[in-house]
Parts: sequence; C-alpha cells; structure tokens
Amino acid sequence: MTKSFVGVDLGGTSMKIGVTDSTGNLLAQTEKPTIAEEGAERTIHRLNVHIKELVASAGISWDEVSGIGLGLPGFLDLKQGIVIHLTNLHWEQVPICKQMESSLDKPVIMNNDANVAALGESWVGAGVGVDDLVCVTLGTGVGGGIIANGQLVSGFRGFAGEIGHIQVDSHGQACNCGCNGCLETIASATGMVNQATSAIQAGTSTLLTQEPTITPAEIFAAAAKGDALAKQIIQRTVEALAQGFAHLSVILNPQRFVVGGGVSNAGEALFQPLRQAYRQIAQQHSAKDVEIVPAKLGNQAGIIGAAGLVALFEDPS
Amino acid sequence: MTKSFVGVDLGGTSMKIGVTDSTGNLLAQTEKPTIAEEGAERTIHRLNVHIKELVASAGISWDEVSGIGLGLPGFLDLKQGIVIHLTNLHWEQVPICKQMESSLDKPVIMNNDANVAALGESWVGAGVGVDDLVCVTLGTGVGGGIIANGQLVSGFRGFAGEIGHIQVDSHGQACNCGCNGCLETIASATGMVNQATSAIQAGTSTLLTQEPTITPAEIFAAAAKGDALAKQIIQRTVEALAQGFAHLSVILNPQRFVVGGGVSNAGEALFQPLRQAYRQIAQQHSAKDVEIVPAKLGNQAGIIGAAGLVALFEDPS
Repeated sequence: MTKSFVGVDLGGTSMKIGVTDSTGNLLAQTEKPTIAEEGAERTIHRLNVHIKELVASAGISWDEVSGIGLGLPGFLDLKQGIVIHLTNLHWEQVPICKQMESSLDKPVIMNNDANVAALGESWVGAGVGVDDLVCVTLGTGVGGGIIANGQLVSGFRGFAGEIGHIQVDSHGQACNCGCNGCLETIASATGMVNQATSAIQAGTSTLLTQEPTITPAEIFAAAAKGDALAKQIIQRTVEALAQGFAHLSVILNPQRFVVGGGVSNAGEALFQPLRQAYRQIAQQHSAKDVEIVPAKLGNQAGIIGAAGLVALFEDPS
Repeated sequence: MTKSFVGVDLGGTSMKIGVTDSTGNLLAQTEKPTIAEEGAERTIHRLNVHIKELVASAGISWDEVSGIGLGLPGFLDLKQGIVIHLTNLHWEQVPICKQMESSLDKPVIMNNDANVAALGESWVGAGVGVDDLVCVTLGTGVGGGIIANGQLVSGFRGFAGEIGHIQVDSHGQACNCGCNGCLETIASATGMVNQATSAIQAGTSTLLTQEPTITPAEIFAAAAKGDALAKQIIQRTVEALAQGFAHLSVILNPQRFVVGGGVSNAGEALFQPLRQAYRQIAQQHSAKDVEIVPAKLGNQAGIIGAAGLVALFEDPS
C-alpha cells in the first residue's frame, strides 16, 4: 500500500496542512485560519476536520495515512507530546498529540517549527544529501534547526537549534529570552529595523527616513543606493550571523548552512557579505569547504518537514 | 561467540591499548612507548604487535575480536581513515586504518581522541543513559566531544566538538588555531597558568610567586588560602567555561556536561563556581535541569571509547 504523511504548520494566524508521499512530494496542501481566540479545543477540532478533508480531496484513503507531524511555535514537551506554552495561540499545557491521536486514530509526532523546517530542507530542499546541516530562518526572530548524522537534533527538552539565542554581544540589547545581545536582537527583521530606528532617533542622516515603514527590503534597497547607515546595518547583521556560524562550526562542523526567512529574500546582497564575514571570523579547519546557501522550500518547509517527522521516523534510511 | 573490541589511545609519548567486551567492560589493558621518532611505519608495526600480544595475554582468541578503534590527537580524514596531520607524532598523510586492516585482517575505525573519550564516558562512564551529552576535557588544551540522539557527532570533516575553539573573548589572546580568545586560551591548564604568569609579570602580588612551578593545582590551593589573584583566575576560568556551555546549551540543549582532565581534579572548587556561573549566564530554558558533573573514566576513557567506536557501530542499540 502507498503510504502518505500529513504535515501541519500551526501558527497564530493560520494552520497550513500538507500531505506528502514517502519521498517528500507534496500531494496536496491547504491553509485555514487558526482562530486562536476560540481556544485550543476548538482549534484542534477544526484542525482534525481540515486534515481529513484535505486527505479526502486528494483522493487518498485514510488507511494510507501513516501519521501526522506537527510543527509548533513554542515550548514543547516532545516526549509527552504536550504543548507547555504557545505564546501566539495563548495555549498552556495542551496534550495535543494524545488529543489528535484519539480523534484521528493515527500516531501524532510534534516538534518545534524551526526544527521541522530544517527537517524539510534536509529531506527535499537545500540540504538534500548532507548529513551535517544547520538551517537558519531570518524572520521576525531567528529560528534554527540542526541535522547531525542525518538526524534532527532536538536535545534534552527540545530546545536544541535555538540559534537565535546564541549570544554575540554580551553588552547588546535585551532579548525576550532574558539574556542580552542574542543573535536575533541583531540579525532578525526586527533586529535590523531596530538598528535603523535607533540610529535615526540618534540623528543619523539616511535615505530610510523617506520610507513610510522600514523593513529589511528597504534597508537592502537603500544600501544598494549607497546609503551609509543601511550598509552599516547590513555589515553588523552579517557579522553577527558569521559569529554565530563560527560557534556552530567549531561545535558541529556542518557541511552546509541553509538560510531562509524574509531577510534572506535579499539574495546575494545578504549572502555575499555573509560568506565573506564567515571566512574572516570562523576557525579555518571547521570552516573549510563549508557552504552558505539559500533555503529552497520557502513557506512549504514547515508542512513538508512536519510530514517528514513521521515519514523519516518510520524509515530512517 | 563472545565478541571483543580493541581500543587504542595513541599519544605522542605512549600508546594505550585496551580490550573490552560488548558492554564496555575493560578485560585487559597495556601501555607502551610510542617512540614517535621511529616514524609512522615502525610505530604502527609495534602497535599491531602489542594489540595481538594483549589479546592473547587476556586469553581471547583473535577470532573473537570484532575490530579495532583508534583515538588519535590530530587532523583526520574519518571517511578515508587517513591521518592528515598528527602534531605530536610528526605524521603527515598516513593511511593508518588501511595499513592496520591489512596487517590485522579486522576493521579499523578512527576518530579524534576527544570525541573517543566522550564516547567512552557516554558508553560506560558519567554519561550513561543520557542521549544528549557534551564532554569536555580540561588538560593542556580544552577538548570536547558531543553525543546527540545517543550518537557521537563528528561533523562534515571530523572537526565537531572542538569546544576549546569556541571564541569567548574577541579581544582575547591569540590561539594556536589562528583565532583570538578561544575557550582554551583561558580554561585549559596552560590558559590558567598563563593568566597567573601574566599577572605576576605585571606586578600582581600573590602566593603563587612562592611556587617553583605554577600549575592549576597550585592555583586552586592558593585560592583556598584566600589569594586574590588565584581566586580571580578561577573566576575568569569558570566564566569562560560557562560562556561556552551557554552557547552549547542553546545549540544542542544537552542534558549533561561531563568535565574531565587535569584541571577537573580540583573537584568542587571548580564545579561549584562553574555551576553558579552557568546558571547566571546561560539562557534559562536551555539550561533548565542541566547537570555539570565530573568525568568518571579518567585516562581509561580513551581506550574504552575507542573500543566503543567498533562495538557501538556494530550494534547501535
């Protein structure tokens, strides 16, 4: 019998659902509103309904579904399958895996959304064929996921891959996590915009003051026009990333860094100075022949990787 | 048939050889001079002879030996089984695994000495039962080894676990590796002694000037007598270690740090302030319930872990 795998990327605004085959081909996908204000029980109920609808609409029999993988943005107890805390959904102590298993009669496996996205890139994206891989998502925050020996590394309590919380400046800005100068205070979209607004408030002259709202795209555009502040923000951002990558290299010696998320849409305007800063900062043995490349799967990394939690757990080859 | 496993810890001065059973019990061991000046071929020949002698003396038939694991202190090509460069032995481009395999007619697997020691602690030492583990050896340098998902992490080119080269002070002392302020410039025996001699040369008054030679043991003894410089060196050492452990925690979220090597002989005089500094510096989620404990196997970690390279590769459960 052909096997199919359901992957869910559950966010505060929308729940993305996909179905893949055993090689990670996406057979069908959908996106529905999360409606977090209805509470966990209703959201999980609708998620179960949408999963069954999607599988049916794809012409797949429910018997062919091996299980459901979940990517969730928060603090999780992976072994128990319990959400400890999901900030965006206001969930506390929700035993989501057991609840879904009893409704759907299939195994349900969860992991952190950034870890799941890394698994997706490893399975069918920019990390295919690479056993030692680090994936980084530069979005509102900086997320990360680690593949070592071809396997996702979740760590003791599921907090492995929290690359955004590598401290790169001990005198830096306070981070939500309680520390100072974490990578994500500088190299996320928020961090880049904060660098710009602080400088503007301090009186720095820049093309960015002409923009109604400042985003990383505007910062890269201003830099391309020669704006000194924009160029300085990009330099600080790539140096912070390179510092984090240098730590990751002596610790894990990955073959490849895969970089995705909104900030990475700048393309070579980000990647070229990032590679250069990494070559300068990283310990040379650990950095030799290491590649820094763009992610391939975009928003689909989450649903594909979540399906992979089940598919690759069943057949780890 | 009972299976036995040979482990070799090859250093510049001596070659330690052990034989274990499939549960990591050390059945026999020996230590012979390396005589590096005779060159790689002679050293490997004598190693082969000593291995066969040890196995015979333990009453084990050669047929029972599944293979030989090697822990080597240098740059290795793990996939090809080639020594690229061993500083202490002046070896360059030595295909040691193939050479030993053709003489001994058994599989030979190699890895970095610090990684092998970590595998030993994981298999039968202070890391038993822990799937996510970081082992650190505070000796002449700072070595490290990482276990994730219950497996040794070697990385793309075998340079994973180079914990001594995590940068903890970008304005710090030059390190042999070409970077500045690596953890081992501060937290190794050499680093601690350098801190003392620099301060003494700068005119700092300390009990340590009464010592004919300064070692970490003398620094801990002087601190116990209230010596301000010695206390300051220990504080800087544990803060540098805690900074490195903080990076490791957000990246790997290990359950336990196992600390060995000469500097760790100080016991609670090291561990107590180290745990305290780690609690203060590390990101709280990643540090929750994480233990920092002494290594258990001492000098035997290398031979037991090297045997484990073969035993655990054969039967990864």
